[in-house]
Amino acid sequence: MRLVTDSISLSTRGDADIIDITPHVSALLGRHGFTHGQALVFVSGSTAGITTIEYEPGLLKDIPAAFEKIAPQNARYFHEDTWHDGNGHSHLQATLLGPSLTVPIRGGALVLGTWQQIFHIECDIRPRERTVCITVLGE
Amino acid sequence: MRLVTDSISLSTRGDADIIDITPHVSALLGRHGFTHGQALVFVSGSTAGITTIEYEPGLLKDIPAAFEKIAPQNARYFHEDTWHDGNGHSHLQATLLGPSLTVPIRGGALVLGTWQQIFHIECDIRPRERTVCITVLGE
Amino acid sequence: MRLVTDSISLSTRGDADIIDITPHVSALLGRHGFTHGQALVFVSGSTAGITTIEYEPGLLKDIPAAFEKIAPQNARYFHEDTWHDGNGHSHLQATLLGPSLTVPIRGGALVLGTWQQIFHIECDIRPRERTVCITVLGE
Repeated sequence: MRLVTDSISLSTRGDADIIDITPHVSALLGRHGFTHGQALVFVSGSTAGITTIEYEPGLLKDIPAAFEKIAPQNARYFHEDTWHDGNGHSHLQATLLGPSLTVPIRGGALVLGTWQQIFHIECDIRPRERTVCITVLGE
Repeated sequence: MRLVTDSISLSTRGDADIIDITPHVSALLGRHGFTHGQALVFVSGSTAGITTIEYEPGLLKDIPAAFEKIAPQNARYFHEDTWHDGNGHSHLQATLLGPSLTVPIRGGALVLGTWQQIFHIECDIRPRERTVCITVLGE
Repeated sequence: MRLVTDSISLSTRGDADIIDITPHVSALLGRHGFTHGQALVFVSGSTAGITTIEYEPGLLKDIPAAFEKIAPQNARYFHEDTWHDGNGHSHLQATLLGPSLTVPIRGGALVLGTWQQIFHIECDIRPRERTVCITVLGE
């Protein structure tokens, strides 16, 4: 059993920018020669999230709309009373989605459906530099 | 430390069909003799999800109603503009819930509450054949 | 590669009581001398959840309000028909949030943002004694 920790850097555009990071994670498996195990994908910070989606243009518009419905940008948030940074909704959206995903590895590849990609979503209102940590445990 | 990867097949009925998969995961632990570690449960595909619930008849009706509120079947989704497959809401529900869950193992058993089961939910609108991957790391 | 399983006990106040458990998880890493790997944090029971947040007073009020919007306490739930325990919304909130989080470990520390803490939320309506299981895999 081996353990490898690596990371990728993302420059996001803010406001629900959704980036497909599947190629980055797959490349890491190949580079380190893992055939079986699991990959943990985790974003540091409290206003971004990680999960899976069918990465196609329609859903890239539907997902932000769904988040806007769950925690609207222009609602009143107590977070603003202290911080006045206009991103109360960003925190709520990120907390509800979660910062991490673990994907199994089998036969040297991520066990994903054909129409299933790993994505990073920027819930914050401005462009951010993000670091996504990838921890692979396996053989 | 050992690593075992296995999978289970499910035939779902569609439309928020909820299946208790705890017995399958528990049986796998016993078959391979794990006493400590963790089990990753992951469904391939972008219109299904995995998490925990108290598996009782009332909640099996409440959960679909909650998902219908979050992402209603009859709302307008951009996903439909391209795909016309009537499952825009399925993608949103699955993305928000997430495709995976990791459960600790202790004393040869899953560390679950008495009223806490692992379930698979079919968010798609038609019956599907699903493969759930289970990756166990432990001793 | 080593595996350590431990747990922490929490006394919650009920009704969306949010507790920062980051210090407990960090202390465990130090006590067992892990430098790299991952920590799985999992709460047993179907009416509590685990994820991350910027732990500050405003969000501690905003998070419960967001959950109340997603699954309101006073809505009608089929769960009540059988159980009459007034916590149908608690189950839904906990299921949607999820009972677990996995955080990478690097350089002997949890890979978290400066303003990102691991929290336990009590979705149930009364004070509860909770056990949070922590499973660390690493070196």
